[in-house]
Amino acid sequence: MNDIYFDNSSTTRVCREAAEKVMETMTENYGNPSSLHALGFRAERAMNEARAAVAAQIGAEKEEVYFTSGGTESNNLALFGAAHAQRRRGNHIVTTQIEHPSVLNVMKKLEQEGYEVTYLKPDEAGRIAPEQIFEAVTGKTILVSMMCVNNEVGSILPIEAAAQAVRAAGAPALIHVDAVQAFGKLPLRPKEIGADLMSMSAHKIHGPKGVGALFVRRGVHLEPHTYGGGQEKDVRPGTEAMPLIAGFGAAVGALPETRTELGKMRELNDFCRGTLQKIDGVRLNSAPEALPYILNFSVPGVRAETMLHFLSDKGIYLSSGSACSRGRESHVLRAMGLPRERIASALRLSFSRYNTKEEIGVFDSALRDGLASLVRRPL
Amino acid sequence: MNDIYFDNSSTTRVCREAAEKVMETMTENYGNPSSLHALGFRAERAMNEARAAVAAQIGAEKEEVYFTSGGTESNNLALFGAAHAQRRRGNHIVTTQIEHPSVLNVMKKLEQEGYEVTYLKPDEAGRIAPEQIFEAVTGKTILVSMMCVNNEVGSILPIEAAAQAVRAAGAPALIHVDAVQAFGKLPLRPKEIGADLMSMSAHKIHGPKGVGALFVRRGVHLEPHTYGGGQEKDVRPGTEAMPLIAGFGAAVGALPETRTELGKMRELNDFCRGTLQKIDGVRLNSAPEALPYILNFSVPGVRAETMLHFLSDKGIYLSSGSACSRGRESHVLRAMGLPRERIASALRLSFSRYNTKEEIGVFDSALRDGLASLVRRPL
Repeated sequence: MNDIYFDNSSTTRVCREAAEKVMETMTENYGNPSSLHALGFRAERAMNEARAAVAAQIGAEKEEVYFTSGGTESNNLALFGAAHAQRRRGNHIVTTQIEHPSVLNVMKKLEQEGYEVTYLKPDEAGRIAPEQIFEAVTGKTILVSMMCVNNEVGSILPIEAAAQAVRAAGAPALIHVDAVQAFGKLPLRPKEIGADLMSMSAHKIHGPKGVGALFVRRGVHLEPHTYGGGQEKDVRPGTEAMPLIAGFGAAVGALPETRTELGKMRELNDFCRGTLQKIDGVRLNSAPEALPYILNFSVPGVRAETMLHFLSDKGIYLSSGSACSRGRESHVLRAMGLPRERIASALRLSFSRYNTKEEIGVFDSALRDGLASLVRRPL
Repeated sequence: MNDIYFDNSSTTRVCREAAEKVMETMTENYGNPSSLHALGFRAERAMNEARAAVAAQIGAEKEEVYFTSGGTESNNLALFGAAHAQRRRGNHIVTTQIEHPSVLNVMKKLEQEGYEVTYLKPDEAGRIAPEQIFEAVTGKTILVSMMCVNNEVGSILPIEAAAQAVRAAGAPALIHVDAVQAFGKLPLRPKEIGADLMSMSAHKIHGPKGVGALFVRRGVHLEPHTYGGGQEKDVRPGTEAMPLIAGFGAAVGALPETRTELGKMRELNDFCRGTLQKIDGVRLNSAPEALPYILNFSVPGVRAETMLHFLSDKGIYLSSGSACSRGRESHVLRAMGLPRERIASALRLSFSRYNTKEEIGVFDSALRDGLASLVRRPL
């Protein structure tokens, strides 16, 4: 039997379209886009095509898309770049307790530099209410950074409230959206919701690992975070990662229509929820209205790592929270106020367009086998 | 006729071994090395193999090699990381005028932060003398950063003198070597020459663009430059660019034996020098003892861009100085004190193991055609 991969929020298998494009760019169109000869110009055209594909996906201009090495770099560039550029206007930043470590750890560093950061607390399903944002933003807020979709439980944050709150407070704040888990999965138009900066990653949507993008709204000034040879208009220098950039563009081009796909994923998620709810003791940690690509649940009495190993041996791959926190207790579930028992046994299913109901059936049996054969004890 | 690619110091065609490894990593071994399941473990093994290959190439431990997004990031991380970590010990930095923009522009930023930077001036062939380093390093020097091989003219810098100068001055300095143009081409053992930090890039040695590495000697502390989910021991977080990392390892594995290859390249370079010297007016800007992979020369009377276009139309690709400075006047040739005329007409040939003497013959005819048909005028 084929392996079953339910860990798509950690990373995805690269789709055929993207893989072929990467290959072509490595072996045929291998020029440096900065080179002043035909191979260089050809590489530059491929880069422009990829940039146009990413821009079109989010209703942005090509010139507003900057390629980076991935979501972590996009977040670092956006946050350091915005905070440092805005230094003279204030020092207050608003974010949430459930951001990715590449946001939270930048915030810690900014606190060391003298910035004041307000961390919004989620409810028990990982949700943030618009009112919390309105309360937190003051006239001195220079930056609001929120994820669009939480990577562990799939809760959808009210990012559109950020711009409204900033306007209401008359704050000089820039608005950053970490859209790594939302890009390609939700209809996202940063300019329509007033976002100035938006982070994206290729490897969550069947593009290759090692490339991402940052949307920077026209007119927004960022202090660069790295310095070099002028590439990406000096915002993100370094020889462009052409094979990956071209592959990213191809992966975006291969994305199914967002709303149709969302409907299919809703169906898959509902089916899986129904299955899990029939298992004694299983608790769902994702709210019903969470992004259907992600379904977090706990199997009290069995440590997550134990169940992961059991399922992995049967060729079924999922995760405990985020791959980026590897075995550490989830800061997201803790912020949601879940009991320790439920945190220690939490598992995350994350789906892609390649998953099927049949796979959920196989997973259901395997999970039941695990619960029957593994010793359950208080955690 | 096949295209002739003499722009290998800008970037290279990915070799078959590396391209196949990238493909396999995208479509089969596509797990996230942080994931706690079989696919994750398999990815982790591939990462370890690549890390071991890079480490072996430079006589380092696996644990001393950190993957980055390329040479620019390696240089930024090394310089900001070292300067910030050493802040309490002094503020003096020594570098040269002919470093890559990803070093020089970091230095400018560090100067804004209050560091004092001494820039060593090269001679007319882009050489730096050991005595210059001894003179510049004082007891307050916290960092010495020098490239091993200059990317525009191929001059080899006396990097081994840095450690000696630091020892002689009793300085607390860390030593950084930008080895982007030397890695895989010269026998390089950072620990033998006392280097603490060394930057490398895959795409100069037939690996993919978008990945590089930083050697960090065991025990050396760097302040991180980006913050995230703990990957690369928190020195360089972000989901690892697995396809590229694996491809980097494969490219290193496919490298021919360094000294043998250097001999072949010497022969190719000598042949090319002989050819060029027979052309009326051509001036060589690379010293005979420069790294043979690079040969810089001027054709007075013809602007470099004009000749590049002429040759590109014939399927022959080279560059004017560095791709990273794209059309701007070369800061390297300026620092070498070359007259404006020679700078404006300077061209760089950069070879790889795939180049042949026959190609140099074809290039020679094309260059002569260009000189005959293009109008030569004072620049």
